[in-house]
Amino acid sequence: MHCGPLGRFLSLIITGMALSAAAAHAQQDTPLNLMPYPSSVQSGSGNLKIDSSFRISLTGYSEPRLERAAERFLRTLHRQTALLIAGKPSEVANATLVVHTDHASKEIQELGEDESYSLEVTPSGAKLTAATPLGTLHGFQTFLQLVHISPDGFVAPAVTIHDQPRFPWRGLMIDSARHFIPLDVLRRNIDGLEAVKMNVFHWHLSENQGFRVESKKFPKLHELGSDGLYYSQEEIHDLIEYARDRGIRVVPEFDVPGHSTAWFVGYPELASGGGPYSIERRWGVFDPAFDPTSEKTYKFLDTFFGEMAKLFPDHFFHVGGDEVNGKEWDANARIQQFKKDHGLKSNEELQSYFNKRLEPLVAKHGKSMVGWDEVLDPTLPKDIVIQSWRGPDGVAAAAKAGFRVLLSNGYYLDLGWSSARHYAVDPLSGPAANLTDEEKFRILGGESCMWAEYVNPENVDSRIWPRNAVIAERLWSPQQLTDPDSMHHRMEFLSTRMEWLGLTHKTYYRQMLQRIAGAGASPEELAALTTLANVVEPVKDYTREETATAEPTSATPLNRLVDAVPLESATVRHFNEQVEKFLASSCHDQVLATRLRKQLSYWKDNDAELQPLAQRSSLVKEVAASSQDLSTLGSIGLDALDFITKGQPAPADWKTQQLTTLDQIAKPKAQLLLMPTAAIQKLVEASAASPCVGSN
Amino acid sequence: MHCGPLGRFLSLIITGMALSAAAAHAQQDTPLNLMPYPSSVQSGSGNLKIDSSFRISLTGYSEPRLERAAERFLRTLHRQTALLIAGKPSEVANATLVVHTDHASKEIQELGEDESYSLEVTPSGAKLTAATPLGTLHGFQTFLQLVHISPDGFVAPAVTIHDQPRFPWRGLMIDSARHFIPLDVLRRNIDGLEAVKMNVFHWHLSENQGFRVESKKFPKLHELGSDGLYYSQEEIHDLIEYARDRGIRVVPEFDVPGHSTAWFVGYPELASGGGPYSIERRWGVFDPAFDPTSEKTYKFLDTFFGEMAKLFPDHFFHVGGDEVNGKEWDANARIQQFKKDHGLKSNEELQSYFNKRLEPLVAKHGKSMVGWDEVLDPTLPKDIVIQSWRGPDGVAAAAKAGFRVLLSNGYYLDLGWSSARHYAVDPLSGPAANLTDEEKFRILGGESCMWAEYVNPENVDSRIWPRNAVIAERLWSPQQLTDPDSMHHRMEFLSTRMEWLGLTHKTYYRQMLQRIAGAGASPEELAALTTLANVVEPVKDYTREETATAEPTSATPLNRLVDAVPLESATVRHFNEQVEKFLASSCHDQVLATRLRKQLSYWKDNDAELQPLAQRSSLVKEVAASSQDLSTLGSIGLDALDFITKGQPAPADWKTQQLTTLDQIAKPKAQLLLMPTAAIQKLVEASAASPCVGSN
Repeated sequence: MHCGPLGRFLSLIITGMALSAAAAHAQQDTPLNLMPYPSSVQSGSGNLKIDSSFRISLTGYSEPRLERAAERFLRTLHRQTALLIAGKPSEVANATLVVHTDHASKEIQELGEDESYSLEVTPSGAKLTAATPLGTLHGFQTFLQLVHISPDGFVAPAVTIHDQPRFPWRGLMIDSARHFIPLDVLRRNIDGLEAVKMNVFHWHLSENQGFRVESKKFPKLHELGSDGLYYSQEEIHDLIEYARDRGIRVVPEFDVPGHSTAWFVGYPELASGGGPYSIERRWGVFDPAFDPTSEKTYKFLDTFFGEMAKLFPDHFFHVGGDEVNGKEWDANARIQQFKKDHGLKSNEELQSYFNKRLEPLVAKHGKSMVGWDEVLDPTLPKDIVIQSWRGPDGVAAAAKAGFRVLLSNGYYLDLGWSSARHYAVDPLSGPAANLTDEEKFRILGGESCMWAEYVNPENVDSRIWPRNAVIAERLWSPQQLTDPDSMHHRMEFLSTRMEWLGLTHKTYYRQMLQRIAGAGASPEELAALTTLANVVEPVKDYTREETATAEPTSATPLNRLVDAVPLESATVRHFNEQVEKFLASSCHDQVLATRLRKQLSYWKDNDAELQPLAQRSSLVKEVAASSQDLSTLGSIGLDALDFITKGQPAPADWKTQQLTTLDQIAKPKAQLLLMPTAAIQKLVEASAASPCVGSN
Repeated sequence: MHCGPLGRFLSLIITGMALSAAAAHAQQDTPLNLMPYPSSVQSGSGNLKIDSSFRISLTGYSEPRLERAAERFLRTLHRQTALLIAGKPSEVANATLVVHTDHASKEIQELGEDESYSLEVTPSGAKLTAATPLGTLHGFQTFLQLVHISPDGFVAPAVTIHDQPRFPWRGLMIDSARHFIPLDVLRRNIDGLEAVKMNVFHWHLSENQGFRVESKKFPKLHELGSDGLYYSQEEIHDLIEYARDRGIRVVPEFDVPGHSTAWFVGYPELASGGGPYSIERRWGVFDPAFDPTSEKTYKFLDTFFGEMAKLFPDHFFHVGGDEVNGKEWDANARIQQFKKDHGLKSNEELQSYFNKRLEPLVAKHGKSMVGWDEVLDPTLPKDIVIQSWRGPDGVAAAAKAGFRVLLSNGYYLDLGWSSARHYAVDPLSGPAANLTDEEKFRILGGESCMWAEYVNPENVDSRIWPRNAVIAERLWSPQQLTDPDSMHHRMEFLSTRMEWLGLTHKTYYRQMLQRIAGAGASPEELAALTTLANVVEPVKDYTREETATAEPTSATPLNRLVDAVPLESATVRHFNEQVEKFLASSCHDQVLATRLRKQLSYWKDNDAELQPLAQRSSLVKEVAASSQDLSTLGSIGLDALDFITKGQPAPADWKTQQLTTLDQIAKPKAQLLLMPTAAIQKLVEASAASPCVGSN
């Protein structure tokens, strides 16, 4: 059954009511380290012991996918605990965890299927019940998150959980076109999606810089457009099966009419310019675009979509549609004439024409078309889905216009935002909060986006995780769950657990730092580099190109400190929290003062350890100035603390001088931002106030 | 051509002479971080720059294996540097590294083939020449070790190297029978062997605890003897190809007549006891043994060896032969009668009878038989090879008796010896030093052994690496190269590099400590656990069973601190060196005194950080006493330093009291040894001496 509007609407009301109560509970009380946090959690007393005798039993509806899921569950439990647990499901009588699945989910996973589950853990056993295998999969992940080491070995706490998602579309987009991302990297990230209960992998497969899918109809697409880096149809088929096993739909994106240089290397006749074309090596928005006036274009896309529609079974088919600069259209007299002949006043109208021609080609193969903001045109069929990326108002606008919509604005992982900032972005906040229930119902959920100018197989996991988990929680958990402290705590917890899935978001770091330092760096030197690395973040948003000394291309090695450090510094987040607390105590908290002094001294002395290494490694030399700045930050912070703890306000000219220095330090160097600067500035401000007050 | 005795003998003389000069040079001067160190190294001036324009060209003899090796070389260079280098060999005119291989090596790699190579690096380019692909493979590894980060980016220093191995058989044995070791783990360790120029992977495939090879002739061997954990013949074939690509022979071992319980689960009629048999779960030496008096045994082994001889193309075939306790033989009246009838006075003589029946079965399939010490019997054909494990005299005894021999005594990686201790073991030292040249010539080399009672896929890399690299150097490099400081320095360097091969000997550590601490441990708590972990080592030699609180079995999870810590503590090695230096300075070196004080204070304060975690995690609780001991060590060390630096000898009763405490601390706790204890004892002794002298 396809879940029609009325059914979904009723379910929204019911779910909405259930959530209000549950969310209020969750908001006040999130003692379990679960992420995304379930909609209803009731703690019991005692623990279920997890040891080698642990057994699982599958009852009710049965299918091979469930058996594979149970075996995978046991393997993950083994990795978490190293316990040697029998790897196969067992009889109910011997089972520690009894699983009951009621009935099958759809053969091809659909939007809006029942993903709910209940999990009851008592000291004597556990029970997981779900309507469909999708719920069972989610329940397995919750159980794994419950297992932890205790004074009595591994246990899961007694608890009763009822859980279901807030939104039916919870996705991650990975751009594997700008930098090719190998299948094993995709697989481990799909494992990550399963762990945080996301259910869509949006696969961005074509770009100016590469066409990544084998086409049997048009082999020059991948042969000439990919540098040999593409996925075979068999590999794609296998990845889709892999994702289906984990309750995840795979939505392909073939971006047209812009972002399409790589298509034209093999098929220049489809482009609006004269060609010839070669694979783009730079980053940015480029001129090449499909010719929307040529029937060849539609014939080609019809055949190509037909081939891809078979390869990708999902009901949704993404055609991109973003960022057409129109230059090739403007420069082509025939296209200009076409616009006049058809009364198309702008390139936007020309693109609308293109989309209207495109949509039936997608629909013909039984699919619903998805496109970025730019495809929004009220005259298009209401079956299409808009993915909103350009601003916070796009979601409401699309929903008002009658379209289904996904939020991605605010969820771009490549922009380097903090987890708290992503967490605060809600599909139903801002203008969307004022929509009617019917309009709200069109908001299907959202997708985080991992654009790949500066990611490769080595660092991509660290750009996705752990921040993606908080977006997953936003899309799954009750809206009222917003406390950033609880979120940060649970995110760190989950981040550690996710290593057991094979994600490399933590291990890559030391390895990249070691490469930067050189294999001959002493442990002390490597520690000094790590201290610096722990407090810098890459420049934010779209400033990486601006701040580059040479134009970056796809051939630029990603081996610098800016490529190695996480996009959010946990060290600085903790430091900021301590500074806030110290100031909020009106500078009276002596324990905190001591801790801050220790940290600041450490930073102050770090540069002396690092400079010898900067003389030996060009990749360290590049960040030597930041290291000196960190030392200065340490000194200024210590001076400010001294003024504060002595109770004597700092002189005004001292304050002015330090703030000038801090302004300089705040500027990016080697494309890195020294993140403690803002907190040090607060200390300086406070040191000059009399008496120190917990302002800011 | 099989390299006959005369050829090898001449080559030994010539190599020997060349080595004397080269080794003297190497001994004095090992400035390059190469391991194993080449036999001749002449430094040039300047550097060859390594950037994205790096190209390689293959000239001379050509085969697909060389092309794959070149591509693998480029992939590893990419991993080391992250430079985006074209992945395929190129034309000579554009090449940075020109490779010339003269002629093919044997279709099936043989003992004693020419593995020599020469490598010349200048600022304008590099040239690698080798007689056969085996030398080319070695030269690639040397080049990769030369590449490092400099103030001007990645470079390789100008140098001229001529290199060849000292011994023709340089192997690692992995026991994948006691704990099953998956193929991906074996593959990455074979990559490790290639990196250190070892050329034999000895695969221990059957044990009381498991039979790990698919047999089509006798399927009950793997079906009933492996818990489903075995290698298919196709997988084995692929692994052999994988190893051949890396210049490595694969020698299988099927251990008979003892160590054979797993065989008898499916085929009890082959055993000397009554059966039935089940897979052994405990560790140790057990009673089950083949019936050497039954013709069934020989018929079975003939067929089985025939099947395996086809599967494993190497000329050598290992039949084990170790540790038969004889109890099943003693208990079997028919076997006792057989001994009387054949005039066999002991079980040793019975086993000799067995071996004499076995050898023709091996020879029949064109193979040379290899066995452990116990198979040595002067009346056996001289074609067999003895692998000496029981004592330092075995090598000389076997060589004197006319057999070819491999040294493994002193190379058991599972015993937890230091790298320096392994490094000091030489196949031609001790009684072997006094052998005639002809006898010495029979000493083919050696093998390190990784027995698998306490290793699994998670920690096995750390038990092999980096210590195996120093055994590899012992077997490859000039005998005169013995300086432990140089060795340690280069070993650490190599250990870091080896991560780029995918070996997990470093990354596993933090992950295991995190599991022990729990995902909820604070960064400070995890750091405290790491500080403790960095200074303990598992109990040595064969004491792990003795010190266990419950009998360990193959079902015991390997998740404790004793399973996580490396078998050699680099931290303590550095600490010991500093204490030695300080004492050698007659306690005058104030810089060292300050450093020691810092380290000791750190240890003293660590316990306070760790105890809260011990309250929450049973796996930390287990080592809480060791943590307290470390704190005590810190205190005692600080007191001793105070006496020393004040120039006042410590009172005798203070000294006595501390030594008593240290005696207690020296005892294993939770199967761990607190390694700084010995150095602290030296400080205490010195503090009571007047004046402090650089003794010990």
